[in-house]
Amino acid sequence: MNEKIEALREKLKNLDLQGMIITNPVNIRYLTNINAEGVLLLTRRENVYITDGRYMEKVNNTLTINDEIIVYDFKELSREDYENFFTFCENVGFEEANLTYAKYKEYMHKYKINNFEETEGLLEKMRIVKKEEEIDSIKKACIITDNCFEYIKKFIKIGMTEKEIAFEIEKFFLMNGADGLAFDTIVASGVNSSMPHAIPTDKKIEDGDPITIDMGCRYNGYCSDMTRTIFAGHVPVYMKPVYDLVLKNQLRVLEELKEGANLKLISKGVDSDFKLNGVSMVHSLGHGVGLDIHEYPFINSKNDFVLKENMVVTDEPGIYIPGRFGVRIEDTVLITKYSSQNLTMSEKGYVVVGV
Amino acid sequence: MNEKIEALREKLKNLDLQGMIITNPVNIRYLTNINAEGVLLLTRRENVYITDGRYMEKVNNTLTINDEIIVYDFKELSREDYENFFTFCENVGFEEANLTYAKYKEYMHKYKINNFEETEGLLEKMRIVKKEEEIDSIKKACIITDNCFEYIKKFIKIGMTEKEIAFEIEKFFLMNGADGLAFDTIVASGVNSSMPHAIPTDKKIEDGDPITIDMGCRYNGYCSDMTRTIFAGHVPVYMKPVYDLVLKNQLRVLEELKEGANLKLISKGVDSDFKLNGVSMVHSLGHGVGLDIHEYPFINSKNDFVLKENMVVTDEPGIYIPGRFGVRIEDTVLITKYSSQNLTMSEKGYVVVGV
Repeated sequence: MNEKIEALREKLKNLDLQGMIITNPVNIRYLTNINAEGVLLLTRRENVYITDGRYMEKVNNTLTINDEIIVYDFKELSREDYENFFTFCENVGFEEANLTYAKYKEYMHKYKINNFEETEGLLEKMRIVKKEEEIDSIKKACIITDNCFEYIKKFIKIGMTEKEIAFEIEKFFLMNGADGLAFDTIVASGVNSSMPHAIPTDKKIEDGDPITIDMGCRYNGYCSDMTRTIFAGHVPVYMKPVYDLVLKNQLRVLEELKEGANLKLISKGVDSDFKLNGVSMVHSLGHGVGLDIHEYPFINSKNDFVLKENMVVTDEPGIYIPGRFGVRIEDTVLITKYSSQNLTMSEKGYVVVGV
Repeated sequence: MNEKIEALREKLKNLDLQGMIITNPVNIRYLTNINAEGVLLLTRRENVYITDGRYMEKVNNTLTINDEIIVYDFKELSREDYENFFTFCENVGFEEANLTYAKYKEYMHKYKINNFEETEGLLEKMRIVKKEEEIDSIKKACIITDNCFEYIKKFIKIGMTEKEIAFEIEKFFLMNGADGLAFDTIVASGVNSSMPHAIPTDKKIEDGDPITIDMGCRYNGYCSDMTRTIFAGHVPVYMKPVYDLVLKNQLRVLEELKEGANLKLISKGVDSDFKLNGVSMVHSLGHGVGLDIHEYPFINSKNDFVLKENMVVTDEPGIYIPGRFGVRIEDTVLITKYSSQNLTMSEKGYVVVGV
């Protein structure tokens, strides 16, 4: 059988769950590679995926005999079929954060479930440590991202708008092997760079603007995530200390990330260095990256979590001076036994564009 | 007070609900214009919007004194504050299709709710008949869409890829006044046009290809939705009868749409004309359009629903010949007292591009 489903079934056994209904499409994709709309059932006897006519062909092309998943068009299923799936299952698990209350009630009735149990992020936790093929996909997404950065550095000219640059980035991704965007691209120039989550505007790039570009794409559904703050025309002298402080911390964290490292301690290290310099960070230091752009583990000074080999996280300190400017530098990083491997490798010295 | 909230409060009274928790962001935007992340509470005494620090400024800029909504950063609220919101409320409504089971449980405890009642699409139903300013926004989105079609007709050249065309459409929208896309643009050429929901590919446009373009943008959050099947180089003779049959039905439906018309009957009319010609439709004939791209009412042969003035719906018959080609023609339409007003006005005769 599909080894991920096998591992999940083992966990269900330990939780005294005889079945599970999986509704989070990202978790379904993780377990089966299916990228469609539907519900995955693990019953006592079998694995079942229920979808609709639009997806039957695509789903059947995705699955292999080894997956041991039976696919149904929901139109083929009778009331009795639904009621039979979980017979002899005392406890059936569900994903309480990914099922609406309306669907919860509907499923209770439709599947005649005795005891419907919350599973508390069971699958999200399984996804933290990546398999080899998952890492390969993230690496490919990161390579496309680095290539995009090389391209966009030459593309940007003073006088272009943030929106134009964001478009060009997204077009590059989709024309150069990515199967989608990991998130809406951020291009924030001048004073806009002081907002961590700015949306690209019609503001034109001016000489002396810092430009924060936060971008990522998907390969096989897996995300990359990289941020660089670059400069139009020249680097204003007063911005250099801020840039240097961010970069110094970003590099130190890269050194610290490895199997056994504690996320709380790493995060506190950045907080205290920033504090020493009279600034503070308004967002968390990083997050896991995989089929979701933001997933476990979250890197902040409250999360007492210890890293393991083959986790993938971001390292993204930033400083934002309200009404002035901001700097953020971010890489996607693979955790290894004794160190970490930076998967986004674009340059991090002062980059000047548009000249 | 805000008149939409006033109308909702009247409905709650009739349902014996003394309060409501609104979690669907689209419904919150409908009621308040707030476009952020948060929860809207209607309590006995007041209207409350709870959000986080990122959105406080934006939300306060959106609201007027007339809205009578108190805004809180969730960090300011204590356990007691939450427990006090719904004191003396016997029954509190919630949106069961827009609240996860996990949040349902959390809210029950946090707000100390006695009786948490499902509201069965109460707000979605209020949204079916549009207000004047909503219609104005949809009209503006439709004008941008027509302008885009004019532009893209001249832009398309034989040899371009579907993806390139889709990008150019999306770029046009965002550079010409739209505040977003209504949905991912479909550009499906040649055999790809035989799939109703094709995704743009790297396939190049060839002479004789039909090209189905389904596109829409947003203005003030309100959507437009238009589809045209156009032709590269020339119109293959064998495609004309299919095109003509789709267009004939699209135009007849436009005539039939008006206050008092029954959606089931209209839909059955198309079904039977298609059947007479040996084809059938694999999707529904249309849907409501507003802050959601697909909303009530849905136009199909099962929905015994009667139209009223100021509803906005699509009229989109299509024929898809598997492995060969497809044609779909769609407009966004405003229902009026004695007829309908077509809001997307791009030409519907044979359009030949790329020559």
